[in-house]
Amino acid sequence: MVTQAKYLTGDKEGIEEFINRFDVFLFDCDGKQVVFVTNNSTKSRADYKQKLTSMGIPATVDEVFGSSYSAAIYISRILRLPANKKTVFVLGEAGIETELDSEKVPHIGGTDPSLARLIEKGDYADIASGTSLDPSVGVVLCGLDYHLNYLKLSLAFHYLRHGAVFLATNLDTTLPSSSTLFPGAGACSAPLVAMLGGKQPTSLGKPSQAMMDAVEGKFRFDRQRACMIGDRLDTDIQFGIEGGLGGTLCVLTGVTRGKQDWEDGKTVPTAWVDKLGDLREGA
Amino acid sequence: MVTQAKYLTGDKEGIEEFINRFDVFLFDCDGKQVVFVTNNSTKSRADYKQKLTSMGIPATVDEVFGSSYSAAIYISRILRLPANKKTVFVLGEAGIETELDSEKVPHIGGTDPSLARLIEKGDYADIASGTSLDPSVGVVLCGLDYHLNYLKLSLAFHYLRHGAVFLATNLDTTLPSSSTLFPGAGACSAPLVAMLGGKQPTSLGKPSQAMMDAVEGKFRFDRQRACMIGDRLDTDIQFGIEGGLGGTLCVLTGVTRGKQDWEDGKTVPTAWVDKLGDLREGA
Repeated sequence: MVTQAKYLTGDKEGIEEFINRFDVFLFDCDGKQVVFVTNNSTKSRADYKQKLTSMGIPATVDEVFGSSYSAAIYISRILRLPANKKTVFVLGEAGIETELDSEKVPHIGGTDPSLARLIEKGDYADIASGTSLDPSVGVVLCGLDYHLNYLKLSLAFHYLRHGAVFLATNLDTTLPSSSTLFPGAGACSAPLVAMLGGKQPTSLGKPSQAMMDAVEGKFRFDRQRACMIGDRLDTDIQFGIEGGLGGTLCVLTGVTRGKQDWEDGKTVPTAWVDKLGDLREGA
Repeated sequence: MVTQAKYLTGDKEGIEEFINRFDVFLFDCDGKQVVFVTNNSTKSRADYKQKLTSMGIPATVDEVFGSSYSAAIYISRILRLPANKKTVFVLGEAGIETELDSEKVPHIGGTDPSLARLIEKGDYADIASGTSLDPSVGVVLCGLDYHLNYLKLSLAFHYLRHGAVFLATNLDTTLPSSSTLFPGAGACSAPLVAMLGGKQPTSLGKPSQAMMDAVEGKFRFDRQRACMIGDRLDTDIQFGIEGGLGGTLCVLTGVTRGKQDWEDGKTVPTAWVDKLGDLREGA
Protein backbone atom coordinates (compact mmCIF):
# COMPACT_ATOMS: atom_id res chain seq x y z
CA MET A 1 0.00 0.00 0.00
CA VAL A 2 1.28 3.43 -0.97
CA THR A 3 1.48 5.79 1.98
CA GLN A 4 3.88 8.38 0.58
CA ALA A 5 3.54 10.29 -2.66
CA LYS A 6 6.68 10.91 -4.72
CA TYR A 7 7.29 14.52 -5.78
CA LEU A 8 8.41 14.42 -9.42
CA THR A 9 8.73 18.06 -10.49
CA GLY A 10 12.39 18.54 -11.54
CA ASP A 11 13.25 14.88 -10.80
CA LYS A 12 14.36 13.69 -14.27
CA GLU A 13 15.15 10.12 -13.31
CA GLY A 14 12.03 9.78 -11.21
CA ILE A 15 9.84 11.00 -14.07
CA GLU A 16 11.40 8.60 -16.57
CA GLU A 17 10.98 5.69 -14.20
CA PHE A 18 7.37 6.69 -13.49
CA ILE A 19 6.33 7.10 -17.12
CA ASN A 20 7.91 3.82 -18.15
CA ARG A 21 5.80 1.92 -15.68
CA PHE A 22 2.61 2.54 -17.68
CA ASP A 23 1.14 1.81 -21.12
CA VAL A 24 -2.06 3.76 -20.61
CA PHE A 25 -2.65 7.16 -19.15
CA LEU A 26 -6.20 7.88 -18.21
CA PHE A 27 -6.13 11.56 -18.89
CA ASP A 28 -3.17 13.12 -20.60
CA CYS A 29 0.28 12.23 -21.88
CA ASP A 30 1.93 11.99 -25.31
CA GLY A 31 3.02 8.87 -27.12
CA LYS A 32 1.02 6.37 -25.20
CA GLN A 33 -2.67 5.43 -25.17
CA VAL A 34 -4.54 8.34 -23.73
CA VAL A 35 -8.11 8.43 -22.41
CA PHE A 36 -9.60 11.72 -21.28
CA VAL A 37 -11.91 10.80 -18.43
CA THR A 38 -14.26 13.60 -17.43
CA ASN A 39 -17.15 13.92 -14.99
CA ASN A 40 -18.57 16.92 -16.87
CA SER A 41 -21.93 15.63 -18.08
CA THR A 42 -23.02 18.79 -19.89
CA LYS A 43 -20.77 18.07 -22.87
CA SER A 44 -20.83 15.10 -25.22
CA ARG A 45 -17.63 13.37 -26.34
CA ALA A 46 -17.78 15.32 -29.61
CA ASP A 47 -18.08 18.60 -27.66
CA TYR A 48 -15.04 17.61 -25.60
CA LYS A 49 -12.95 16.67 -28.59
CA GLN A 50 -13.67 20.14 -29.96
CA LYS A 51 -12.75 21.78 -26.67
CA LEU A 52 -9.46 19.85 -26.45
CA THR A 53 -8.62 20.67 -30.07
CA SER A 54 -9.27 24.36 -29.44
CA MET A 55 -6.85 24.11 -26.51
CA GLY A 56 -4.18 22.72 -28.86
CA ILE A 57 -4.56 19.16 -27.57
CA PRO A 58 -5.14 16.74 -30.45
CA ALA A 59 -7.77 14.16 -29.51
CA THR A 60 -10.31 11.90 -31.15
CA VAL A 61 -13.88 11.34 -30.01
CA ASP A 62 -12.93 7.80 -29.04
CA GLU A 63 -10.25 9.05 -26.67
CA VAL A 64 -12.83 10.95 -24.65
CA PHE A 65 -14.79 9.14 -21.96
CA GLY A 66 -17.36 11.36 -20.25
CA SER A 67 -19.77 10.58 -17.45
CA SER A 68 -22.73 11.07 -19.83
CA TYR A 69 -21.31 8.46 -22.19
CA SER A 70 -20.55 6.21 -19.22
CA ALA A 71 -24.18 6.53 -18.10
CA ALA A 72 -25.52 5.87 -21.61
CA ILE A 73 -23.42 2.69 -21.91
CA TYR A 74 -24.50 1.54 -18.45
CA ILE A 75 -28.17 2.01 -19.33
CA SER A 76 -28.01 0.43 -22.79
CA ARG A 77 -25.61 -2.44 -22.14
CA ILE A 78 -25.62 -3.31 -18.45
CA LEU A 79 -28.95 -2.31 -16.92
CA ARG A 80 -31.62 -4.86 -17.81
CA LEU A 81 -34.74 -2.73 -18.08
CA PRO A 82 -38.15 -4.32 -18.77
CA ALA A 83 -39.24 -3.82 -22.39
CA ASN A 84 -41.93 -1.32 -21.37
CA LYS A 85 -39.60 0.70 -19.10
CA LYS A 86 -36.84 1.74 -21.47
CA THR A 87 -37.24 5.53 -21.35
CA VAL A 88 -34.90 7.75 -19.34
CA PHE A 89 -36.13 10.91 -17.61
CA VAL A 90 -33.17 13.31 -17.77
CA LEU A 91 -32.36 15.98 -15.22
CA GLY A 92 -29.46 17.50 -17.14
CA GLU A 93 -28.12 19.06 -20.29
CA ALA A 94 -27.65 18.31 -24.00
CA GLY A 95 -24.44 16.34 -23.37
CA ILE A 96 -26.50 13.61 -21.72
CA GLU A 97 -29.13 13.66 -24.47
CA THR A 98 -26.50 13.34 -27.21
CA GLU A 99 -24.86 10.34 -25.56
CA LEU A 100 -28.20 8.64 -24.89
CA ASP A 101 -28.99 9.17 -28.59
CA SER A 102 -25.65 7.62 -29.54
CA GLU A 103 -26.70 4.48 -27.67
CA LYS A 104 -30.29 4.71 -29.02
CA VAL A 105 -31.76 5.11 -25.53
CA PRO A 106 -35.13 6.94 -25.59
CA HIS A 107 -35.32 9.90 -23.25
CA ILE A 108 -37.56 12.75 -22.10
CA GLY A 109 -37.06 15.75 -19.81
CA GLY A 110 -33.59 17.30 -20.11
CA THR A 111 -33.64 20.43 -22.26
CA ASP A 112 -37.30 20.01 -23.31
CA PRO A 113 -38.48 23.65 -23.49
CA SER A 114 -42.01 22.67 -22.39
CA LEU A 115 -40.58 21.95 -18.92
CA ALA A 116 -38.79 25.30 -18.64
CA ARG A 117 -41.61 26.86 -16.66
CA LEU A 118 -43.06 27.28 -13.18
CA ILE A 119 -45.20 24.51 -11.74
CA GLU A 120 -48.88 25.34 -12.21
CA LYS A 121 -51.98 24.45 -10.21
CA GLY A 122 -53.08 21.65 -12.53
CA ASP A 123 -49.63 20.04 -12.46
CA TYR A 124 -50.05 18.78 -8.89
CA ALA A 125 -53.14 16.71 -9.68
CA ASP A 126 -51.75 15.55 -13.05
CA ILE A 127 -48.52 14.37 -11.45
CA ALA A 128 -50.36 12.81 -8.50
CA SER A 129 -52.75 10.88 -10.77
CA GLY A 130 -49.95 10.00 -13.19
CA THR A 131 -51.65 11.53 -16.24
CA SER A 132 -48.63 13.78 -16.90
CA LEU A 133 -46.15 10.94 -16.29
CA ASP A 134 -44.79 8.81 -19.16
CA PRO A 135 -45.44 5.17 -18.14
CA SER A 136 -42.40 3.97 -20.13
CA VAL A 137 -39.91 5.78 -17.86
CA GLY A 138 -37.69 3.26 -16.04
CA VAL A 139 -34.70 5.45 -15.18
CA VAL A 140 -34.12 8.91 -13.72
CA LEU A 141 -30.66 10.14 -14.74
CA CYS A 142 -29.30 13.25 -12.98
CA GLY A 143 -26.37 15.32 -14.15
CA LEU A 144 -25.50 18.97 -13.92
CA ASP A 145 -28.71 20.79 -14.88
CA TYR A 146 -28.63 24.51 -15.64
CA HIS A 147 -32.38 24.22 -16.30
CA LEU A 148 -33.13 22.74 -12.88
CA ASN A 149 -36.55 23.79 -11.63
CA TYR A 150 -39.34 22.78 -9.25
CA LEU A 151 -41.44 21.15 -11.98
CA LYS A 152 -38.60 18.90 -13.19
CA LEU A 153 -37.72 17.92 -9.62
CA SER A 154 -41.38 17.05 -8.96
CA LEU A 155 -41.57 14.87 -12.07
CA ALA A 156 -38.25 13.15 -11.30
CA PHE A 157 -39.38 12.42 -7.75
CA HIS A 158 -42.63 10.84 -8.90
CA TYR A 159 -40.86 8.64 -11.47
CA LEU A 160 -38.59 7.45 -8.65
CA ARG A 161 -41.61 6.79 -6.42
CA HIS A 162 -43.05 4.69 -9.23
CA GLY A 163 -39.93 2.52 -9.21
CA ALA A 164 -37.54 4.16 -11.69
CA VAL A 165 -33.83 3.34 -11.24
CA PHE A 166 -31.99 6.34 -9.72
CA LEU A 167 -28.76 7.11 -11.62
CA ALA A 168 -26.36 10.06 -11.70
CA THR A 169 -23.66 10.92 -14.20
CA ASN A 170 -21.53 11.95 -11.20
CA LEU A 171 -21.87 13.17 -7.64
CA ASP A 172 -19.50 16.15 -7.54
CA THR A 173 -21.36 18.70 -5.44
CA THR A 174 -19.42 21.62 -6.92
CA LEU A 175 -18.24 22.63 -10.40
CA PRO A 176 -15.03 24.69 -10.62
CA SER A 177 -15.48 27.75 -12.85
CA SER A 178 -13.99 31.27 -12.94
CA SER A 179 -11.54 30.23 -10.19
CA THR A 180 -14.39 29.52 -7.80
CA LEU A 181 -17.17 26.99 -7.34
CA PHE A 182 -20.69 26.65 -8.72
CA PRO A 183 -23.38 23.98 -8.16
CA GLY A 184 -22.31 20.58 -9.53
CA ALA A 185 -24.28 17.50 -10.55
CA GLY A 186 -24.36 16.31 -6.93
CA ALA A 187 -26.06 19.56 -5.91
CA CYS A 188 -28.70 19.08 -8.64
CA SER A 189 -29.59 15.57 -7.42
CA ALA A 190 -29.48 16.63 -3.73
CA PRO A 191 -33.19 17.64 -3.53
CA LEU A 192 -34.20 14.14 -4.70
CA VAL A 193 -31.77 12.47 -2.29
CA ALA A 194 -33.27 14.54 0.54
CA MET A 195 -36.84 13.66 -0.49
CA LEU A 196 -35.92 9.96 -0.61
CA GLY A 197 -34.62 10.08 2.95
CA GLY A 198 -30.94 9.98 1.98
CA LYS A 199 -31.01 7.31 -0.73
CA GLN A 200 -28.14 8.07 -3.13
CA PRO A 201 -28.21 7.46 -6.90
CA THR A 202 -25.81 5.02 -8.51
CA SER A 203 -23.05 7.19 -9.94
CA LEU A 204 -21.53 6.48 -13.35
CA GLY A 205 -18.72 9.03 -12.96
CA LYS A 206 -15.41 9.10 -11.08
CA PRO A 207 -14.68 7.66 -8.53
CA SER A 208 -17.44 5.09 -9.22
CA GLN A 209 -15.99 1.82 -10.43
CA ALA A 210 -18.92 1.45 -12.82
CA MET A 211 -17.06 4.05 -14.89
CA MET A 212 -13.73 2.22 -14.58
CA ASP A 213 -15.36 -1.01 -15.75
CA ALA A 214 -16.82 0.82 -18.75
CA VAL A 215 -13.45 2.42 -19.62
CA GLU A 216 -11.67 -0.93 -19.35
CA GLY A 217 -14.41 -2.65 -21.33
CA LYS A 218 -13.84 -0.24 -24.18
CA PHE A 219 -10.03 0.12 -24.17
CA ARG A 220 -9.00 -3.33 -22.89
CA PHE A 221 -5.74 -2.51 -21.09
CA ASP A 222 -3.78 -4.09 -18.24
CA ARG A 223 -4.80 -2.18 -15.11
CA GLN A 224 -1.33 -2.67 -13.63
CA ARG A 225 0.04 -0.77 -16.66
CA ALA A 226 -2.42 2.10 -16.42
CA CYS A 227 -2.07 5.40 -14.60
CA MET A 228 -4.81 7.85 -13.61
CA ILE A 229 -3.78 11.50 -13.79
CA GLY A 230 -5.94 14.18 -12.24
CA ASP A 231 -6.24 17.14 -9.91
CA ARG A 232 -8.87 15.93 -7.40
CA LEU A 233 -8.06 13.41 -4.70
CA ASP A 234 -11.66 12.40 -3.94
CA THR A 235 -12.60 11.74 -7.56
CA ASP A 236 -9.54 11.27 -9.84
CA ILE A 237 -7.00 9.74 -7.49
CA GLN A 238 -9.59 7.72 -5.57
CA PHE A 239 -10.88 6.43 -8.94
CA GLY A 240 -7.42 5.08 -9.83
CA ILE A 241 -6.72 3.61 -6.40
CA GLU A 242 -10.10 1.86 -6.09
CA GLY A 243 -9.71 0.57 -9.63
CA GLY A 244 -6.42 -1.08 -8.75
CA LEU A 245 -4.48 0.84 -11.39
CA GLY A 246 -0.68 0.60 -11.41
CA GLY A 247 -0.39 4.23 -10.42
CA THR A 248 -1.95 7.62 -9.87
CA LEU A 249 -0.48 11.04 -10.52
CA CYS A 250 -1.79 14.17 -8.86
CA VAL A 251 -1.29 17.54 -10.58
CA LEU A 252 -1.61 20.66 -8.46
CA THR A 253 -3.24 22.84 -11.11
CA GLY A 254 -6.74 22.20 -9.76
CA VAL A 255 -8.37 21.93 -6.36
CA THR A 256 -5.61 19.91 -4.65
CA ARG A 257 -3.03 22.24 -3.07
CA GLY A 258 -0.30 19.76 -2.13
CA LYS A 259 0.95 17.25 0.43
CA GLN A 260 -1.21 18.68 3.20
CA ASP A 261 -4.30 17.42 1.36
CA TRP A 262 -3.33 13.73 1.58
CA GLU A 263 -1.56 13.92 4.95
CA ASP A 264 -4.50 12.10 6.56
CA GLY A 265 -3.44 9.03 4.56
CA LYS A 266 -6.93 8.50 3.10
CA THR A 267 -6.21 9.08 -0.60
CA VAL A 268 -2.48 9.21 -1.35
CA PRO A 269 -1.37 9.44 -5.02
CA THR A 270 1.60 7.41 -6.23
CA ALA A 271 3.30 10.61 -7.35
CA TRP A 272 2.66 14.29 -7.85
CA VAL A 273 3.87 17.22 -9.96
CA ASP A 274 3.14 20.93 -9.78
CA LYS A 275 1.81 20.94 -13.32
CA LEU A 276 1.40 18.38 -16.08
CA GLY A 277 4.10 20.01 -18.24
CA ASP A 278 6.66 19.04 -15.59
CA LEU A 279 6.45 15.47 -16.89
CA ARG A 280 7.90 16.59 -20.25
CA GLU A 281 11.12 17.76 -18.63
CA GLY A 282 12.01 14.21 -17.77
CA ALA A 283 10.46 12.40 -20.71
CA MET B 1 -41.76 9.85 30.35
CA VAL B 2 -44.71 8.93 28.15
CA THR B 3 -44.23 5.60 26.42
CA GLN B 4 -47.84 4.83 25.56
CA ALA B 5 -50.25 7.01 23.62
CA LYS B 6 -53.86 7.11 24.78
CA TYR B 7 -56.51 6.48 22.10
CA LEU B 8 -59.27 9.03 22.66
CA THR B 9 -61.70 8.51 19.78
CA GLY B 10 -65.08 7.59 21.38
CA ASP B 11 -63.65 7.84 24.91
CA LYS B 12 -65.85 10.60 26.39
CA GLU B 13 -64.30 10.66 29.85
CA GLY B 14 -60.78 10.44 28.47
CA ILE B 15 -61.40 13.37 26.14
CA GLU B 16 -62.81 15.53 28.88
CA GLU B 17 -59.92 14.76 31.19
CA PHE B 18 -57.40 15.45 28.36
CA ILE B 19 -58.90 18.79 27.30
CA ASN B 20 -59.13 20.04 30.86
CA ARG B 21 -55.41 19.62 31.35
CA PHE B 22 -54.60 22.50 28.98
CA ASP B 23 -55.13 26.25 28.61
CA VAL B 24 -53.48 26.61 25.25
CA PHE B 25 -53.75 24.51 22.13
CA LEU B 26 -51.05 25.08 19.59
CA PHE B 27 -53.11 24.36 16.53
CA ASP B 28 -56.82 23.90 16.82
CA CYS B 29 -59.56 23.71 19.43
CA ASP B 30 -62.50 25.88 20.40
CA GLY B 31 -62.88 27.97 23.51
CA LYS B 32 -59.29 28.13 24.54
CA GLN B 33 -56.28 30.08 23.29
CA VAL B 34 -55.41 28.74 19.88
CA VAL B 35 -52.21 29.21 17.86
CA PHE B 36 -51.99 27.86 14.35
CA VAL B 37 -48.36 26.83 13.95
CA THR B 38 -47.37 26.11 10.35
CA ASN B 39 -44.13 25.29 8.56
CA ASN B 40 -45.51 26.45 5.21
CA SER B 41 -43.26 29.41 4.36
CA THR B 42 -44.89 30.33 1.06
CA LYS B 43 -47.83 32.01 2.82
CA SER B 44 -47.77 35.00 5.15
CA ARG B 45 -49.87 35.08 8.34
CA ALA B 46 -52.45 37.21 6.48
CA ASP B 47 -52.61 34.60 3.68
CA TYR B 48 -53.17 31.88 6.27
CA LYS B 49 -55.89 33.75 8.10
CA GLN B 50 -57.68 34.04 4.76
CA LYS B 51 -57.23 30.34 4.03
CA LEU B 52 -58.57 29.36 7.48
CA THR B 53 -61.52 31.71 7.11
CA SER B 54 -62.36 30.22 3.71
CA MET B 55 -62.32 26.78 5.37
CA GLY B 56 -64.89 28.02 7.93
CA ILE B 57 -62.34 28.30 10.72
CA PRO B 58 -62.47 31.77 12.30
CA ALA B 59 -58.96 33.04 13.02
CA THR B 60 -57.09 36.31 13.41
CA VAL B 61 -53.69 37.13 11.93
CA ASP B 62 -52.25 37.10 15.45
CA GLU B 63 -53.36 33.51 15.99
CA VAL B 64 -51.25 32.35 13.06
CA PHE B 65 -47.57 31.60 13.59
CA GLY B 66 -45.79 30.59 10.37
CA SER B 67 -42.18 29.61 9.78
CA SER B 68 -41.65 32.73 7.63
CA TYR B 69 -42.80 34.94 10.49
CA SER B 70 -40.69 32.90 12.91
CA ALA B 71 -37.65 33.48 10.68
CA ALA B 72 -38.38 37.20 10.32
CA ILE B 73 -38.61 37.60 14.12
CA TYR B 74 -35.41 35.60 14.61
CA ILE B 75 -33.53 37.80 12.14
CA SER B 76 -34.86 41.13 13.40
CA ARG B 77 -34.92 40.51 17.15
CA ILE B 78 -32.46 37.75 18.03
CA LEU B 79 -29.72 37.59 15.39
CA ARG B 80 -27.21 40.39 16.01
CA LEU B 81 -26.11 41.30 12.47
CA PRO B 82 -23.41 43.92 11.86
CA ALA B 83 -24.87 47.27 10.70
CA ASN B 84 -23.51 46.76 7.17
CA LYS B 85 -24.80 43.16 6.87
CA LYS B 86 -28.52 43.55 7.46
CA THR B 87 -29.84 42.34 4.09
CA VAL B 88 -31.35 38.88 3.63
CA PHE B 89 -30.93 36.93 0.38
CA VAL B 90 -34.17 34.93 0.04
CA LEU B 91 -34.50 31.55 -1.63
CA GLY B 92 -38.26 31.35 -1.34
CA GLU B 93 -41.66 32.84 -2.02
CA ALA B 94 -43.70 35.94 -1.29
CA GLY B 95 -44.75 34.67 2.17
CA ILE B 96 -41.16 35.14 3.35
CA GLU B 97 -40.88 38.56 1.73
CA THR B 98 -44.12 39.76 3.36
CA GLU B 99 -43.02 38.67 6.83
CA LEU B 100 -39.53 40.20 6.41
CA ASP B 101 -41.27 43.43 5.38
CA SER B 102 -43.47 43.26 8.49
CA GLU B 103 -40.30 43.24 10.59
CA LYS B 104 -38.63 45.89 8.36
CA VAL B 105 -35.83 43.51 7.34
CA PRO B 106 -34.32 44.46 3.94
CA HIS B 107 -34.20 41.58 1.46
CA ILE B 108 -33.25 40.67 -2.11
CA GLY B 109 -33.65 37.52 -4.24
CA GLY B 110 -36.94 35.73 -3.61
CA THR B 111 -39.49 36.47 -6.30
CA ASP B 112 -37.33 39.14 -8.04
CA PRO B 113 -38.20 38.58 -11.73
CA SER B 114 -34.68 39.55 -12.85
CA LEU B 115 -33.44 36.29 -11.30
CA ALA B 116 -36.03 34.13 -13.08
CA ARG B 117 -33.63 33.20 -15.88
CA LEU B 118 -30.85 30.82 -16.90
CA ILE B 119 -27.31 31.52 -15.72
CA GLU B 120 -25.36 33.28 -18.48
CA LYS B 121 -21.69 33.28 -19.40
CA GLY B 122 -20.95 36.64 -17.78
CA ASP B 123 -22.63 35.60 -14.51
CA TYR B 124 -19.80 33.24 -13.55
CA ALA B 125 -17.14 35.97 -13.60
CA ASP B 126 -19.47 38.53 -11.99
CA ILE B 127 -20.33 36.17 -9.15
CA ALA B 128 -16.69 35.07 -8.76
CA SER B 129 -15.43 38.66 -8.58
CA GLY B 130 -18.34 39.71 -6.38
CA THR B 131 -19.53 42.48 -8.71
CA SER B 132 -23.01 40.94 -8.92
CA LEU B 133 -23.17 40.29 -5.17
CA ASP B 134 -24.77 42.78 -2.75
CA PRO B 135 -22.15 43.46 -0.05
CA SER B 136 -24.84 44.15 2.56
CA VAL B 137 -26.13 40.54 2.54
CA GLY B 138 -25.56 38.91 5.92
CA VAL B 139 -28.16 36.12 5.82
CA VAL B 140 -29.28 33.48 3.31
CA LEU B 141 -32.83 32.37 4.19
CA CYS B 142 -34.19 29.26 2.43
CA GLY B 143 -37.81 28.23 2.28
CA LEU B 144 -39.92 26.41 -0.23
CA ASP B 145 -39.00 28.04 -3.56
CA TYR B 146 -41.14 27.37 -6.64
CA HIS B 147 -38.74 29.70 -8.52
CA LEU B 148 -35.64 27.69 -7.57
CA ASN B 149 -33.01 27.81 -10.30
CA TYR B 150 -29.29 27.42 -10.93
CA LEU B 151 -28.60 31.17 -10.85
CA LYS B 152 -30.26 31.67 -7.45
CA LEU B 153 -28.47 28.65 -6.01
CA SER B 154 -25.14 30.02 -7.30
CA LEU B 155 -25.78 33.42 -5.71
CA ALA B 156 -26.90 31.88 -2.41
CA PHE B 157 -23.82 29.67 -2.29
CA HIS B 158 -21.48 32.63 -2.83
CA TYR B 159 -23.18 34.70 -0.12
CA LEU B 160 -22.67 31.76 2.23
CA ARG B 161 -19.02 31.47 1.19
CA HIS B 162 -18.63 35.16 2.04
CA GLY B 163 -19.86 34.48 5.56
CA ALA B 164 -23.64 34.93 5.44
CA VAL B 165 -25.63 33.16 8.20
CA PHE B 166 -27.42 30.08 6.81
CA LEU B 167 -31.09 29.96 7.89
CA ALA B 168 -34.13 27.95 6.77
CA THR B 169 -37.80 28.54 7.46
CA ASN B 170 -38.07 24.76 7.93
CA LEU B 171 -36.39 21.54 6.86
CA ASP B 172 -39.32 19.40 5.69
CA THR B 173 -37.99 17.64 2.61
CA THR B 174 -41.46 17.02 1.22
CA LEU B 175 -44.67 19.02 0.91
CA PRO B 176 -47.96 17.09 0.98
CA SER B 177 -50.23 18.10 -1.91
CA SER B 178 -52.90 16.33 -4.01
CA SER B 179 -52.63 13.30 -1.68
CA THR B 180 -48.98 12.83 -2.58
CA LEU B 181 -45.65 14.55 -2.00
CA PHE B 182 -43.80 17.39 -3.74
CA PRO B 183 -40.42 19.02 -2.99
CA GLY B 184 -40.41 20.81 0.37
CA ALA B 185 -38.24 23.58 1.80
CA GLY B 186 -35.64 21.01 2.88
CA ALA B 187 -35.32 19.82 -0.74
CA CYS B 188 -34.78 23.41 -1.91
CA SER B 189 -31.93 23.99 0.56
CA ALA B 190 -30.41 20.53 -0.12
CA PRO B 191 -28.15 21.67 -3.02
CA LEU B 192 -26.54 24.27 -0.72
CA VAL B 193 -26.15 21.76 2.12
CA ALA B 194 -24.44 19.37 -0.33
CA MET B 195 -22.13 22.12 -1.63
CA LEU B 196 -21.19 23.06 1.95
CA GLY B 197 -20.19 19.48 2.71
CA GLY B 198 -23.25 18.70 4.80
CA LYS B 199 -23.53 21.88 6.87
CA GLN B 200 -27.22 22.33 7.76
CA PRO B 201 -29.00 25.68 8.07
CA THR B 202 -30.50 26.77 11.38
CA SER B 203 -34.21 25.99 11.07
CA LEU B 204 -36.86 28.38 12.37
CA GLY B 205 -39.73 25.92 11.83
CA LYS B 206 -41.05 22.87 13.70
CA PRO B 207 -39.51 20.93 15.39
CA SER B 208 -36.83 23.59 15.98
CA GLN B 209 -37.11 25.04 19.45
CA ALA B 210 -36.20 28.45 18.04
CA MET B 211 -39.82 28.47 16.83
CA MET B 212 -41.17 27.34 20.22
CA ASP B 213 -39.24 30.13 21.96
CA ALA B 214 -40.70 32.64 19.51
CA VAL B 215 -44.26 31.33 20.01
CA GLU B 216 -43.90 31.43 23.79
CA GLY B 217 -42.32 34.89 23.64
CA LYS B 218 -45.38 36.16 21.82
CA PHE B 219 -48.19 34.32 23.62
CA ARG B 220 -46.70 33.96 27.13
CA PHE B 221 -48.35 30.76 28.32
CA ASP B 222 -47.44 28.07 30.83
CA ARG B 223 -45.84 25.26 28.81
CA GLN B 224 -47.24 22.67 31.23
CA ARG B 225 -50.71 23.91 30.30
CA ALA B 226 -50.13 23.85 26.53
CA CYS B 227 -50.81 21.07 24.05
CA MET B 228 -49.41 20.64 20.55
CA ILE B 229 -51.83 19.09 18.07
CA GLY B 230 -50.62 17.87 14.71
CA ASP B 231 -50.43 15.06 12.18
CA ARG B 232 -46.66 14.57 11.83
CA LEU B 233 -44.60 12.83 14.47
CA ASP B 234 -41.19 14.14 13.34
CA THR B 235 -42.26 17.78 13.23
CA ASP B 236 -45.48 18.45 15.22
CA ILE B 237 -45.27 15.90 18.01
CA GLN B 238 -41.49 16.16 18.30
CA PHE B 239 -41.90 19.95 18.53
CA GLY B 240 -44.21 19.61 21.53
CA ILE B 241 -42.16 16.95 23.30
CA GLU B 242 -38.83 18.79 22.88
CA GLY B 243 -40.52 21.99 24.01
CA GLY B 244 -41.60 20.35 27.26
CA LEU B 245 -45.29 21.01 26.65
CA GLY B 246 -47.86 19.42 28.96
CA GLY B 247 -49.13 17.24 26.16
CA THR B 248 -49.22 16.34 22.48
CA LEU B 249 -52.15 15.06 20.44
CA CYS B 250 -51.68 13.21 17.18
CA VAL B 251 -54.48 13.29 14.59
CA LEU B 252 -54.45 10.61 11.89
CA THR B 253 -55.76 12.80 9.08
CA GLY B 254 -52.25 13.46 7.72
CA VAL B 255 -49.08 11.43 7.17
CA THR B 256 -49.19 9.48 10.45
CA ARG B 257 -51.15 6.24 10.03
CA GLY B 258 -51.46 5.06 13.62
CA LYS B 259 -49.77 3.26 16.51
CA GLN B 260 -47.35 1.43 14.25
CA ASP B 261 -45.63 4.76 13.50
CA TRP B 262 -44.56 5.39 17.10
CA GLU B 263 -44.01 1.76 18.06
CA ASP B 264 -40.25 2.36 18.00
CA GLY B 265 -40.74 4.59 21.05
CA LYS B 266 -38.90 7.54 19.51
CA THR B 267 -41.71 10.07 19.28
CA VAL B 268 -44.81 8.98 21.20
CA PRO B 269 -47.73 11.44 21.48
CA THR B 270 -49.59 11.80 24.78
CA ALA B 271 -52.85 10.89 23.04
CA TRP B 272 -54.31 10.35 19.60
CA VAL B 273 -57.61 10.56 17.75
CA ASP B 274 -58.63 9.49 14.27
CA LYS B 275 -59.70 13.02 13.38
CA LEU B 276 -59.81 16.34 15.19
CA GLY B 277 -63.62 16.38 15.24
CA ASP B 278 -63.53 13.36 17.57
CA LEU B 279 -62.55 15.74 20.38
CA ARG B 280 -65.93 17.48 20.14
CA GLU B 281 -67.83 14.31 21.01
CA GLY B 282 -66.38 14.40 24.48
CA ALA B 283 -66.15 18.14 25.06
